[in-house]
Amino acid sequence: MSFNISERDDTIVALATPQGVGAIAVIRLSGKEAIRLTNEVFKGKDLEKQASHTIHFGTLRDAEKIIDEVLVSLFIAPRSFTRENVVEISTHGSSYIVNQVIKLLVRKGARPAKPGEFTQRAFINGQFDLAQAEAVADLIHSDSEASHMAAMNQMRGGFSGAIKELREQLVHFASMIELELDFSEEDVEFASRDQLRELVEKLLRVIEELIASFDLGNVIKNGVPTVIAGKPNAGKSTLLNALLNEEKAIVSDIAGTTRDFIEDEISIGGMIFRFIDTAGLRETTDVIESIGVSRTQEKMKSASLILYLFDLGDTSMEEVENDVLLLEELGVPYLKVANKVDKAQTELIHALTAKFPDMILISAGQKENLEGLKQRLLEMVNLDKFRTGNTVVTNIRHYDSLVKTRQSLLEVISGLDQQITNDFLAMDIRRSLHFLGEITGEITTDDLLDNIFSKFCIGK
Amino acid sequence: MSFNISERDDTIVALATPQGVGAIAVIRLSGKEAIRLTNEVFKGKDLEKQASHTIHFGTLRDAEKIIDEVLVSLFIAPRSFTRENVVEISTHGSSYIVNQVIKLLVRKGARPAKPGEFTQRAFINGQFDLAQAEAVADLIHSDSEASHMAAMNQMRGGFSGAIKELREQLVHFASMIELELDFSEEDVEFASRDQLRELVEKLLRVIEELIASFDLGNVIKNGVPTVIAGKPNAGKSTLLNALLNEEKAIVSDIAGTTRDFIEDEISIGGMIFRFIDTAGLRETTDVIESIGVSRTQEKMKSASLILYLFDLGDTSMEEVENDVLLLEELGVPYLKVANKVDKAQTELIHALTAKFPDMILISAGQKENLEGLKQRLLEMVNLDKFRTGNTVVTNIRHYDSLVKTRQSLLEVISGLDQQITNDFLAMDIRRSLHFLGEITGEITTDDLLDNIFSKFCIGK
Repeated sequence: MSFNISERDDTIVALATPQGVGAIAVIRLSGKEAIRLTNEVFKGKDLEKQASHTIHFGTLRDAEKIIDEVLVSLFIAPRSFTRENVVEISTHGSSYIVNQVIKLLVRKGARPAKPGEFTQRAFINGQFDLAQAEAVADLIHSDSEASHMAAMNQMRGGFSGAIKELREQLVHFASMIELELDFSEEDVEFASRDQLRELVEKLLRVIEELIASFDLGNVIKNGVPTVIAGKPNAGKSTLLNALLNEEKAIVSDIAGTTRDFIEDEISIGGMIFRFIDTAGLRETTDVIESIGVSRTQEKMKSASLILYLFDLGDTSMEEVENDVLLLEELGVPYLKVANKVDKAQTELIHALTAKFPDMILISAGQKENLEGLKQRLLEMVNLDKFRTGNTVVTNIRHYDSLVKTRQSLLEVISGLDQQITNDFLAMDIRRSLHFLGEITGEITTDDLLDNIFSKFCIGK
Repeated sequence: MSFNISERDDTIVALATPQGVGAIAVIRLSGKEAIRLTNEVFKGKDLEKQASHTIHFGTLRDAEKIIDEVLVSLFIAPRSFTRENVVEISTHGSSYIVNQVIKLLVRKGARPAKPGEFTQRAFINGQFDLAQAEAVADLIHSDSEASHMAAMNQMRGGFSGAIKELREQLVHFASMIELELDFSEEDVEFASRDQLRELVEKLLRVIEELIASFDLGNVIKNGVPTVIAGKPNAGKSTLLNALLNEEKAIVSDIAGTTRDFIEDEISIGGMIFRFIDTAGLRETTDVIESIGVSRTQEKMKSASLILYLFDLGDTSMEEVENDVLLLEELGVPYLKVANKVDKAQTELIHALTAKFPDMILISAGQKENLEGLKQRLLEMVNLDKFRTGNTVVTNIRHYDSLVKTRQSLLEVISGLDQQITNDFLAMDIRRSLHFLGEITGEITTDDLLDNIFSKFCIGK
C-alpha cells in the first residue's frame, strides 16, 4: 500500500458511513478531481463554481437515469480533512444506491480507496502527526468513557506535544555535538555535557512516566481482565448477568442507538471490565467442572483483578478464611464479595464483617448493593491519574518505541559517564531521536505506514 | 404515534446513518430549536448567525469535556428535508460517541425521534405527499435496479401526479352535482351526465391499468417467486450456487460495499428472483425427500415461475416428454432446462432440441450457458412496460385503495345507468374521492399515518 506520486494524485472514493440500511449514507471523495468528477454526474448547481463548506441539493445521474436525489457537501483544498479537495455525497441509505454511485464515480475516473487512505493522506499532507492519525482509529473504536478520553486527548495532540518538545531539545544537542565533530581538532565544546545530562535525565523521567502509563492505557483500551471466581453455585453467573443487564438498560434508553454488547464486557463508571469465563461461570456438568478448576486457577493468576464470590447461604467462617488465604497466595488484586446476603444468618454476617471489614455484601439475585460493588471495582483501577488529564499511552507501537528510546537514552547517560568520544555519543543521541520520531511519524518507512493504515476501516 | 401540536413543536434527534463502526456517523436534528440547541454544545462559529446550507468545523462539548471534533451542516427552514430547521452533525463513527452526543442533546431539550418521524414531518409540512413519503422507505430498501427505479419514480411523483390530476377533475364534478342539490327544486343540471360518465370511464381505464401493474410491482418489490424443480440429482443445488456465486462476484468487485445476500435471492438483469426451497433443492436424506415431494408440487403450483431441470446424463426422451406433460398440466409458466449438457449423448440432444426448440441447454457444474438461461428468465418477466417509464404500483396499501376506488367508480357508472338521485350519485363520487385521496394522503387518519411511518427506520 505504499504510495508513489501518481497514486497520491488519484481521486479516491469510498463509503464513509457504516454498511447496512439507514436513513442516509455518506460517500466521500478526496483528490484534485473530486469536485470535477462529482460535477460530471450531478444535476443541480455547477459544483465547480461553489464556495467551500457549502451544501447543494440535486440528482446524481448515470446518463439520463436518476440514481438518487442527494446532498453534496464541498470542501475545497486545503480546508478539508485530507487537505485535498473533498466531496461528501449524502444519499438515501440503501446498499444498492451506494453501490451504483461508487461504480459510477469509478467509471468517471475515481479509484476505490484503500483502508485508512483518507487519514493517510491527511497525515502525508501535514494535517496531523502519526500518533494523532492513529488516535482517529482509536476514537472510532472507543467504547467507554476512558478509552474515548484517551483517544480524544491523543488526537488533539496532547501526547504528540509532549514528545515533540523533548525531541526538539534533543535535536539541538545532537546538532551541537555533531558540530563539535567538525571542529574536533580544536577541542571546543558547543554543547555543555552537564546540560545534556540534565536534559536526558529529564527526558528519561517523562518517558518512564509514559511507559508506566501503558499498564493503565492498556486496560483503558482493552478493558480490565477480571475473573469472577468462587465455589460452584456461589452466584457467579447471576452476578454477571445482573451487571450486564443493568448496563444494557442504561444504554438502550436512547432509542435508535443500541450498542452491540460483547458478552462479558461491562462498562462501569466509564471503564470496561472484561470478565473472563471460568469454570462455574457458566452452568457446567460435573465432569467438565472438575477439568475446569485447574484452568480457573491459571486464569485467576493471569487476571488483573479477581472478584471472589462467597456463598453466604452455604459457607462457614472457616471456609472463608481458608479461601482468603489461598487468594493472598495468588498475589493478584482481588475483591472479597459475599453473595446471597438475603439468605445469610446474622451471626455469620457479623463475624465476617468484623474479621474482614472490606468484605462487600451483596445479593446478585435481589440486585442488592450492586452499586457498592461497582464503586469498589472502580477503586481497584487507578483512574485518578488519568482523570487529571495526564497523557496515557494506549498504543503498543508507541510503547515499543518508548521502551527503545529509554534504552538509547540510558546508553547516552552511560556514554557520558564513561566519557566516550563525540561520534559515539552523537550516534546514541541520534538513535534516541529515531525512536522518538517513530511515534509522531517524523521518522517513517513505507512498511510502517502500511502497517498502521491497513488496520483502519475503508472510508476513513 | 399520533401527533398533537406540542409534539410537532419538539426538536427531534436521531442517528441517521446505519449503526456500527464506520469512518463517520451523522446525527440529525429537526425542529424550531435544532440550531439553537446544537449551538449550545458547539464550540466554533456562532451557528445561529450562519447561512443555510453551510458547514462548520468545531468541537462538541459537555461542559468542558470534549466529546468530539465534528462538522455541523445547517439547513434553515424551509430549505430542508422536513421544511423545519435541520442540523446534521457529522461525528467520528463510534457508537460510544453517537450515544454521548444524542444523550447530551436530549439533556439540552431535544427528544429522541420516533421511527419515520423526520419523513412524517416532511409530509405534514407539505414537502411531498404520502405516496412519495412511502417511496422514501422503498428507496432505502431497494436492492435491485427494478425496485430502485420503481421507488425513484414514485418518490419523484410519477405515481402521485397521475392520481392527483384525475382526482381534481372528479372533485369538480362532485361539487357541481352537490351544487345541483342546492337547486334541486329548479331542476338545473350544472354537471353534464355524459361528461361525467366519460370522465369516470377514463378514470376506470387508468385505475385498471394501475391495478394490473401491481402484479409486476409486486415481483419488482418482493422478487419473482421461482421454483427450481427436477428429479433428485438433476443439479438444482449446483445451479442455484452457480447463479448465486456469480452475483456475489459481480457485486463485491467494489471494495467496501459488499452486500448481505439473502440465500436464494438472486438479482438477474436488475430483477430479483426469489428461489423457493423445494425438496431436492438442498441435499436431503431419502426419508425426508419422500415427504418433500408432495410439498414440492404444492410449491410449484403457487410459484410465478418454474425452472425445471432435466438431467441429460441420466434421462430418456420418454421421461422428458412425460415431465413436460405434467408441467403443462400445472398451468404455471415454466422454463425447460436441460442440465449436464457436457455429459449427454449427442443423439439425445438432437432429439430434444428437435422436439422442444425452446429447451435451454446448460451445464451448471461447468457454468456453461448460464447467460442464456438468465436471458430467458428475464424474458419470462414482462419488464418492457416498466422500462418505458409507465407507473407501476408496488405498494399493497395503494393497491387496496385502487381496488376500492374501482368498486366505487363502477357504482357511479351503475348509478348513472339507473339514473339514481343526485344525493346518491354525489355520495358514490365522494366515496371514490376518499379512496383516491388515501393514496396520496389528502385523506388521512392518525391510525393510517402511524401504521405507515412506524415501519420506517429511526432517523429517517
